[in-house]
This record gives sequence, structure tokens and C-alpha cells, in this order.
Amino acid sequence: MATNTDNIRLSFDEVRQLAEQPLLNCGISREHADAMADVVALAEADEARSHGLYRIPGCVQAVRSGKVAPRAEPEVTASAGAVVRMDARCGFALYPLRAGQPLLVDKARQFGLAALALNNCYHFSALWADVERLAESGMVALSCTIGAHNVALAGGSAPAFGTNPLAFAFPRGAGRKPFVFDLSSSVVAKGEIELRRRSGMPLPPGWAVDREGALTTNPDDALNGAILPFGGHKGAALGLMVELLAGPLIGDLRSAEALAIDTHDGGPLRGGYLMLAIDPRHFGGGPGKMEDADAWLTSLAEQHQPARLPGTRRHAARQRSLAQGICIPRVLYDQLLELC
Amino acid sequence: MATNTDNIRLSFDEVRQLAEQPLLNCGISREHADAMADVVALAEADEARSHGLYRIPGCVQAVRSGKVAPRAEPEVTASAGAVVRMDARCGFALYPLRAGQPLLVDKARQFGLAALALNNCYHFSALWADVERLAESGMVALSCTIGAHNVALAGGSAPAFGTNPLAFAFPRGAGRKPFVFDLSSSVVAKGEIELRRRSGMPLPPGWAVDREGALTTNPDDALNGAILPFGGHKGAALGLMVELLAGPLIGDLRSAEALAIDTHDGGPLRGGYLMLAIDPRHFGGGPGKMEDADAWLTSLAEQHQPARLPGTRRHAARQRSLAQGICIPRVLYDQLLELC
Repeated sequence: MATNTDNIRLSFDEVRQLAEQPLLNCGISREHADAMADVVALAEADEARSHGLYRIPGCVQAVRSGKVAPRAEPEVTASAGAVVRMDARCGFALYPLRAGQPLLVDKARQFGLAALALNNCYHFSALWADVERLAESGMVALSCTIGAHNVALAGGSAPAFGTNPLAFAFPRGAGRKPFVFDLSSSVVAKGEIELRRRSGMPLPPGWAVDREGALTTNPDDALNGAILPFGGHKGAALGLMVELLAGPLIGDLRSAEALAIDTHDGGPLRGGYLMLAIDPRHFGGGPGKMEDADAWLTSLAEQHQPARLPGTRRHAARQRSLAQGICIPRVLYDQLLELC
Repeated sequence: MATNTDNIRLSFDEVRQLAEQPLLNCGISREHADAMADVVALAEADEARSHGLYRIPGCVQAVRSGKVAPRAEPEVTASAGAVVRMDARCGFALYPLRAGQPLLVDKARQFGLAALALNNCYHFSALWADVERLAESGMVALSCTIGAHNVALAGGSAPAFGTNPLAFAFPRGAGRKPFVFDLSSSVVAKGEIELRRRSGMPLPPGWAVDREGALTTNPDDALNGAILPFGGHKGAALGLMVELLAGPLIGDLRSAEALAIDTHDGGPLRGGYLMLAIDPRHFGGGPGKMEDADAWLTSLAEQHQPARLPGTRRHAARQRSLAQGICIPRVLYDQLLELC
């Protein structure tokens, strides 16, 4: 374990343990803590800090405040046709998503495509881990959930919908990571603004408006105002789509409703999660076509530099982290040790 | 029929006839011409000119060049589980999409969600008409197809994928148009650049790069270079997703392959089309939740002005057009009369 003044370097397993122990200590069941620590450690390895260890204290607080049920056992409430419905019973989302995956994949193999709708869950962290795992079992995967009620319509000045992430993964050839992206409907994830607020950094212009609707670079003003949608009205349209799919379609909360019942303990918001799995073998995308797609993605990455494909930076960071260890800010490390 | 120097005002039925007659005259079957004229007239009524009458001469050319089979009868090639596969047999796409819709809806009602993969078709015009029709039968609808191979990755300087439109529709209450959007992966649809080229107008900055990768406002240079993705890397990610879904996944062409076999007659490109239908009744989004979504969208539209919801401008234009008629440039009118 190497150190310098501000950072500390840990192995993947040490990071994973630093994520898991505080969760177990506050009464979260082994199944939940296991799924959560896997995703948090992966986010740190991928250098996607806003989905990493800094979320752990919030998860602990969300249990202590009584908001999240730490030992909730997810229940399959319906499994007719190509749809699996699960109730997380007010627990965290990652364990139910992992537990429901085999049933989702079985249905996709049987019917060609299938959906998993998870209700009453608390999702934190990135969605890419969920879809990447599905793609590694050969499925094309699409998922979305409701995010913080903080994003304005293009030309608007107040929050109209959530940061509403949408993730997609497409399987690639043996030994290659799936094509994966995970994008919020906002110019940036709220976590990026939160991280800048904590470190006292201003925002780049164009990220947010204050509560009067004026552009602002102040993180506090942005968090009290609204984040702008990415790509103007197109990003707003996608954000509204996710709000409808992961909210009313599956009988769950909209982002404003989730905010209204939240206890503001720093933990995640309650809401729904929708995941689709598509089996290429039912669609004509046989081995030849899927190999062709793989070769195409490889050639795109080579021929269009310095432009990058989605996921490239993350996967490169993961390789580096597994070889050289992961740098964690000492202040965060100390905070987590206190919870261990 | 009122006229002035540059424009001519027609009724919806007159526009529809102006679209249909040239198609019938060049040998396109009644079923195809009917579906195509409906969508073209709707685009004109919605004041979405780039999907309207100006496409008709290209469709005629595409038949005359021998590229598109004008009387192709689509064939259902597979219908197992929740997946309908159809072969358009190198005909236009709109009639097969309309013909396949009842089977798609039946499967969505049976399994909760279903997919229609259409191969070897020539799709022109907007996708919103396809998803709007599905939403009017109570389905949540998502569709995509390959567009012109003209869009660069964020930070790239050459076309990497197509304009790849993605459309979505969500049913609303009785008497209200569905929530609908239809967006290309590029900052603008290629048709918008084409229209400006024809009328000698420069492009707004930020739309495109020339073949050296430099930003350009010249439509010709843009058409020889690349259009930029909307929203930077996020729009590019979505464009790549559509390319994978409507291409390799369903065993069909990528945009570069479609370009390579095109005859450059001004008509549409060959390729695949993927459409998903989701039945809310299988997902917990019962009447209460769907009504709540409807009320929410109404309140958004009222409370966030001047910001607009997707589709608002189009639906308002349609209402106006049906009452007052549709303005068509005289030069286009004369061109179409010659084909009638």
C-alpha cells in the first residue's frame, strides 16, 4: 500500500473491502453488500469516481435514516410472457438486478427479447455494470432508471425531469469488453457537480442554470437551480423517455415524486428500474453479423483517433488499475476507515 | 386553392394526391403508394418539410434506376416468440411497417413486449408516423433505422456512422396526441443540410466539418465532410447504438455498406428497421399510472413555457394545416405536377 500526502494507492480487493465493510457494519445483508461492493470497486477501477467509494457514506446514512431496508429480499411478483416484475421491497437495487438476471436471460433466449421491471428500489452507482454483465452473457442490453429531479427542458429554467441515466451494451468478440455506454440526460451527472462542490471548483459554463434560469458556474447555485439537458431538446426528449419508461410505465415514481418522499440523507432516491435483454440469435444477427460488428467497432476505434468509442477510457483505466492499483483521496479513505 | 408568387396553398387531400399520383405513375403498387402518401402528406401538414413532398422525386428516381422494387410484397420470414421478422424484398418500408403492425401489437399484448425487424427495405421520411400510430393503439413504441453515412464521432473528422434516427412514442389520454419524438444522431437531419444547399443558404456554425475536419457553414462542404453528432459523445453513443440495432443485430447493412451499394439516384438507402412495442398493461403501468403520466406531461407543457415538449410544434402545425391548408413552394408544386 503506497501513499503520498493526498492520495493512497490500494489494490482492487482492498478497495472492494473498503466498500463492503461499512455496508455490512450498518446491517446491510451479505447479498446486498456483495453486489454493491463489486460495482463500487469497479467504478473506482474504471476511474469513474462519481460512482465510486464516495457513495458509500450516503448508503450507510440511507440505512441509518430508516429509508432503505438493509436486508430486503427481492420478490418476483410476476413472470408471465417476456416480462419479469420484481419488487425490491425498499432495498438497494444492485442485488435484485443481479438476482433477476438469470430469469431475464432465460426469457430473452426463449422469446427473443425480455424485460425486467424492478419496483421500489434504491439505485445508486452506474448502470454500465448492469448492462455490461448482460452483454457478457451474449445479450444486447438496454437499461434506465430515474435520477435526481434536477434537469430542465431545453430553454427551461426549473427542473422538469431527472438525470435519468440510459445504458446500453452490445456483445463483442471473445476477450473483448462489450460496447457499453451509460449516459445521463443532463450535460453531466449530478455527481460531477457534487464532486466539484466538495472540492470548491467552479463548473464549466453551459452545465447549469440557477433558480432564476440564468447560466451559472457555481455548484451550489446549480444544485438549487437546474442542470441543462445534453444536446438541447434531443437530450431532453431522451430524459423524458426514461422518466416515462422507468416511472409510470412500470407503475413506479416520477423523479419529482421520488424527491418529495426522500429523507435527504445523502443516499439514493427511491424509484423504478427497467432493463431489456435482446437475444441476437432471434434477430438474424448470427455469428457472422455479430463478428462483423465487432470488427467494425475495432476499425472505428483505430481509424477515428483521437475520437474514442464509448467505454474505451473506462476499460483502459480498469486494465491500469488492476495492474498498478487504484488511487483514493486520503480524506475519503480516512472517512471510510471510520465506518469499517 | 390560393396562390401567391412563391407559394401555393393546398388542402391536405390535395397534398396527399400530389404525393401519391407520381408514385402510382412510376409503377409503385397501390399499397405502397397509399402508405407513402399518408406519411408525406402528414409531414407537410406538420411543417416538417424535410420529410415531405420534396422526397417524392427521389422515390420516383429510385424506382426508375431499378434500385427499389415498386411492387414488392413484404413477407413474414419468422414469427417465433415475441419477434416478427419481415423481408421487404427491396421495396419501400412504409407499407411493410403498416402491414406488420397488427402482428407486432398482438405479440406485445401476448408477451408484454415484442419486436418487428424489417430487412432489405428502403425507408424514407420520418419515423414519428410509425411510432405515433403504435402509441395510438395503446403501445409504448420505440423504433430506429440506419440513416445516411454522414456523422462523425465526437472529436472525429470523417463519417463514422449514419444519421440513424431514433423515435419514441408514449400513449396519452383520449383526444390527446401521443408524446412523440424522432431524432437523428446528428446535430441536424441530413435533409436540413440538403434543403439549405438547394436554397443557397449557409449552415449555422457547429453543424458540420469539411473533409479536412474543419468546421464549415457551406452545405456542399458539409455533405462532402461529416455532420457532427448532437450532444457530443452522448449523441455519438446513441448513433452507434442505432447502427448496431438496425444493422448487425437484425442481420442487415451498416450505413457504410448501404452507401457502398447505393445508386445515388436521390432516393433512400437500403437497410434494416427495428421497432419495439411495449404493452403497459404487463408492466404495472395500469390506467391510474398512465393517466398520471398524461397529467404530468400536460403540466410540464403549461409550467415550463417557453420550453416545449417534443412533438408540440408538429401537432400544432397539423391542426393549423388541417384548418387553413398547407403552403407548398411553387417550384416544388410544378415539379410534382410534371410527374403527375
